[in-house]
Amino acid sequence: MVSMKKIKLIKKLAKEEGVSYAFFLRNYKKGQIAILKNKKSKRKAVAVGKGLSVKINANIGASPLMSDLKKELKKLSIAQKYGADTVMDLTCGANTKKILREVLKNAQIPVGTVPVYEVFSRFEKPTPSDFLSVIEEHLAMGVDFITVHCGVRREVLKRMKKKKRTAGIVSRGGGLLLGWMAKTGKENPLFEYYDRLLEIAKKYDAVLSLGDGLRPGAISDANDWFQLFELKMLGKLAKRAWEKGVEVMIEGPGHIPLNQIEKVVRDEKSLCHGAPFYVLGPLPTDIAAGFDHITSAIGGALAGMYGADFLCYVTPAEHLDLPEPEDVKIGVIASKIAAHIADIARGRKQSIERDLALSEARFNLDWKKMKKHLLVPEVISDEKLNRKTCTMCGEFCPIAKTIKIIKNYEKTK
Amino acid sequence: MVSMKKIKLIKKLAKEEGVSYAFFLRNYKKGQIAILKNKKSKRKAVAVGKGLSVKINANIGASPLMSDLKKELKKLSIAQKYGADTVMDLTCGANTKKILREVLKNAQIPVGTVPVYEVFSRFEKPTPSDFLSVIEEHLAMGVDFITVHCGVRREVLKRMKKKKRTAGIVSRGGGLLLGWMAKTGKENPLFEYYDRLLEIAKKYDAVLSLGDGLRPGAISDANDWFQLFELKMLGKLAKRAWEKGVEVMIEGPGHIPLNQIEKVVRDEKSLCHGAPFYVLGPLPTDIAAGFDHITSAIGGALAGMYGADFLCYVTPAEHLDLPEPEDVKIGVIASKIAAHIADIARGRKQSIERDLALSEARFNLDWKKMKKHLLVPEVISDEKLNRKTCTMCGEFCPIAKTIKIIKNYEKTK
Repeated sequence: MVSMKKIKLIKKLAKEEGVSYAFFLRNYKKGQIAILKNKKSKRKAVAVGKGLSVKINANIGASPLMSDLKKELKKLSIAQKYGADTVMDLTCGANTKKILREVLKNAQIPVGTVPVYEVFSRFEKPTPSDFLSVIEEHLAMGVDFITVHCGVRREVLKRMKKKKRTAGIVSRGGGLLLGWMAKTGKENPLFEYYDRLLEIAKKYDAVLSLGDGLRPGAISDANDWFQLFELKMLGKLAKRAWEKGVEVMIEGPGHIPLNQIEKVVRDEKSLCHGAPFYVLGPLPTDIAAGFDHITSAIGGALAGMYGADFLCYVTPAEHLDLPEPEDVKIGVIASKIAAHIADIARGRKQSIERDLALSEARFNLDWKKMKKHLLVPEVISDEKLNRKTCTMCGEFCPIAKTIKIIKNYEKTK
Repeated sequence: MVSMKKIKLIKKLAKEEGVSYAFFLRNYKKGQIAILKNKKSKRKAVAVGKGLSVKINANIGASPLMSDLKKELKKLSIAQKYGADTVMDLTCGANTKKILREVLKNAQIPVGTVPVYEVFSRFEKPTPSDFLSVIEEHLAMGVDFITVHCGVRREVLKRMKKKKRTAGIVSRGGGLLLGWMAKTGKENPLFEYYDRLLEIAKKYDAVLSLGDGLRPGAISDANDWFQLFELKMLGKLAKRAWEKGVEVMIEGPGHIPLNQIEKVVRDEKSLCHGAPFYVLGPLPTDIAAGFDHITSAIGGALAGMYGADFLCYVTPAEHLDLPEPEDVKIGVIASKIAAHIADIARGRKQSIERDLALSEARFNLDWKKMKKHLLVPEVISDEKLNRKTCTMCGEFCPIAKTIKIIKNYEKTK
């Protein structure tokens, strides 16, 4: 049963996306489209999934070694300025709630969190009910979607002893949960109390982003037992969520060679029954630290073309440090480029038309119109608005030549 | 007939590339591998083509609106520092020879040019023999490869009137030649005197890079009549070159949607009989000026995976201005990332092993070793060499967690 309020929202979102209401509703009901919006939130709703434009998320948030509320709010405002569709506040260490409260207050777009970070920041020896209470606290504050690493099961610990991975576990949440399971001897509480988790999510109309705690952190770990074990598990959990009327997304890798990205997307779509796919990267090489926004834009564009629905940005700081505001800007832009390229490759009319409008302006050497259609308009400064050719070619400008040739031809005939 | 000197060079290059001498020689003879090295040059030779690692080229050179020898030499040294395999000096306007002479003197890697730029910079009304003399001048100076837009034929002019393109002609050389043909009523001298051109190239053992004067400059022009007309023409010209013992590469687009890149590479390989493919981009969107190094890294990685052999970098200045030295750095890095990602996707052992070595160091939180294997080592500053975890997670580092879990497990068993 879809509420009247939701029906109204779906009509609005379908229009924004340029798809029919019937198409949107059908896929929403099947779970293949998710709407990121907590019942309590007054922020913009964002939809991800089948037939919609590819969305991007920007991670912000402090860490124990770098914690500064002002800086995090600056990152938020930059992420929004450059076009992030959502943000996740990944703060861990002290002040998690304080920062989250301010992020929720200042954001105009959906906000996600990974509640286990706060669990492990606050409690030395968290109990299963601590996990559930922190989750409910976040959703009660208005968080729109949460990453829950429900697929990281106890048997993974045994397998870790037998089968070594190059890069082990690179998911912060996955690592924390495995540590907890190893210490307590218990099953992952996010799996064990999944039904309770679904009830809480339902209560707030929040989306569960089923986390990839076992994603490969090196291309040599790509598509290994761990990754596929978890993906299959998430497929089962997605079905259980849908049965309870809870929306989910599936999180995906990670470090994947370019030639295996198609397989990763196809696997997710088949093993997880078409649930929206939210990828971190993928990064098709391990050696490009400092420039992994480029690496991940390459992987993300390809994943998007094959059907990934939601790209988590990667900043130049990835693998080195917590991102600074400037890194957030570059990360968002790189990710927007990847998403737009994927939209074009998927045949999205509005995206193709935008490129056409830009190129028509470019052919007319009309810098004002170019600026209007550019992804990052600020790259054309005001002083450049009235020039004709650029400094690349000057009088040798091929576009100016073409215009002249065509004009002369028209005169002679 | 392959000379003894060439045989020696082939043995050296095959070893560097990690392919067998027999494989290299066979494909060299077929024209599917080209060696960039003028007979007169003392610079490093670089091979491009079948089964070899993907190479990258950096364009430098002044323009009428920005001409500064010192700056161009700085660009050259930066391009070499960050790993460009070749450079092209695209200077046009005044001082073409002066800059080229210094570039050739200071480069350690192969140097390419586009001689028609000088033709149109020096002569107001160039004659066909002016074209041939400037070409010979460049090769006599030691230029290793030249772009010659031989496929831009007169019939293109007629077609331009009938069939409009969004972005017209965006190749500087293509535009200049079409302008010349329109004015003089003559056929393209690079086509008409192609046999003479082959003789000159043969004399200096230079590689002809058969230029894409008709490449699409907007994704809406991708794979149109102009692009395919020229590609077919270049396939015929490649055969004629091989018959005369001249090595060629085929230049490729341009602006191409991501889902059409595979077709572009397949078309080149079949229509041009497996000749090495040298692509500019491809750029899978038109709207990302200021960040087109990212756009082109996305297109280039995919093209490389499908078999493109040589990527021409694109800098953040593309579509806006002539690149500054800092743009050259970013452009080379982005292009190196794309080439390396393609090498991995193509299964190149040495590339895969480098990632493995980096990820093993990363798993051991060994920043010194990481620095050794990184594409851009300078991103790990000296002060960071002795740290354990980074500021992204601090004490919540998943890698540190994994190590602890595995160690504890080993203790208990």
